[in-house]
Amino acid sequence: MIIIGIAGGSGSGKTTLARNISEHFTDRISILRHDDYYKSQSDIPERERAELNYDHPSAFDTELLISHLDMLRRGESVSSPVYDYTIHDRSGRTRNVLASEVVILEGILIFENEDILSRLDMKIFVDTDPDVRIIRRIVRDVKKRGRTLESVIAQYLATVKPMHEAFVEPSKKRADIIIPEGGKNPVAYGMIIDKIESYLAKK
Amino acid sequence: MIIIGIAGGSGSGKTTLARNISEHFTDRISILRHDDYYKSQSDIPERERAELNYDHPSAFDTELLISHLDMLRRGESVSSPVYDYTIHDRSGRTRNVLASEVVILEGILIFENEDILSRLDMKIFVDTDPDVRIIRRIVRDVKKRGRTLESVIAQYLATVKPMHEAFVEPSKKRADIIIPEGGKNPVAYGMIIDKIESYLAKK
Repeated sequence: MIIIGIAGGSGSGKTTLARNISEHFTDRISILRHDDYYKSQSDIPERERAELNYDHPSAFDTELLISHLDMLRRGESVSSPVYDYTIHDRSGRTRNVLASEVVILEGILIFENEDILSRLDMKIFVDTDPDVRIIRRIVRDVKKRGRTLESVIAQYLATVKPMHEAFVEPSKKRADIIIPEGGKNPVAYGMIIDKIESYLAKK
Repeated sequence: MIIIGIAGGSGSGKTTLARNISEHFTDRISILRHDDYYKSQSDIPERERAELNYDHPSAFDTELLISHLDMLRRGESVSSPVYDYTIHDRSGRTRNVLASEVVILEGILIFENEDILSRLDMKIFVDTDPDVRIIRRIVRDVKKRGRTLESVIAQYLATVKPMHEAFVEPSKKRADIIIPEGGKNPVAYGMIIDKIESYLAKK
């Protein structure tokens, strides 16, 4: 098994990259998302949850994620929590993730944590300019998650941007490769595909 | 044929990366170095040549380099000039470069020029911190090229650093992939090798 980490700021295109890789290899690949391991916030009133800092490492149940990575490495499938962005809480549902030959772990902060880093065989950072990232975030959160433009911008300036600068940007140096514009970079995409194919062929 | 560009600042490790790739594929690969295409400075007194700006795009005979890239692409071998750093001038010798299946072009400024960029099939930028790069440059120029520490530092501050910031750093965005610490990054190195092997196998 190889575990590939794909990190990058909010709106960088890391999800697109992970999905494209996953679709290429279909049943030989599984995806874990750090976002799904957001801590449960059910003890906090729903209207206050939108104000929380979702971009700080402490917002995640990273211990659970790491135990799941270790289970996958041992060949055991895991039940990943599923996060619901509309209520800012775990949905209560879980998603069965198989111990496939290739596992992708995706998240903004996965290169910030030494215990995650040491478990990754390949570390890819998707690097996209901040203006492009906020545009994508606005479009996504307003159009797909039904939030107001004002709340998206307020959250961006209050937590997303400062946490990006404090944790995400410095973690870029921990990557094996950095990909400008990850979702729309055919050469880099081809290199990742070739690397995975080479691994699967040698198995 | 594929032409792979490897760019990065002075002391970034791009030459090490190019050499390692080249040694892996031996006779199926050729290397061109933008540095070998420094303009001849024989009309300038030798003691003044060390003061010139060798880090500005205008220091290179890029037209000749591009005509050589086009010859290689057409399957013709070329006679690359060979630069002599000890006299800051072309050596008068040439080096025969074969139209191999894979050609690597290496240089600090190759992603700054649109006419070079459009000829590259894969663009790799080796990204190394400035402090590490100046340390390597000092060691190389003082120990291997017989220069004084003072002259290396003076040149670095007068031209290398400002030109890096004006031309090299912005050109990083033109890369397909960015490699932290290119010469000592086994995962990225493996990806490049796999990509080239995949290309050669499909030929």
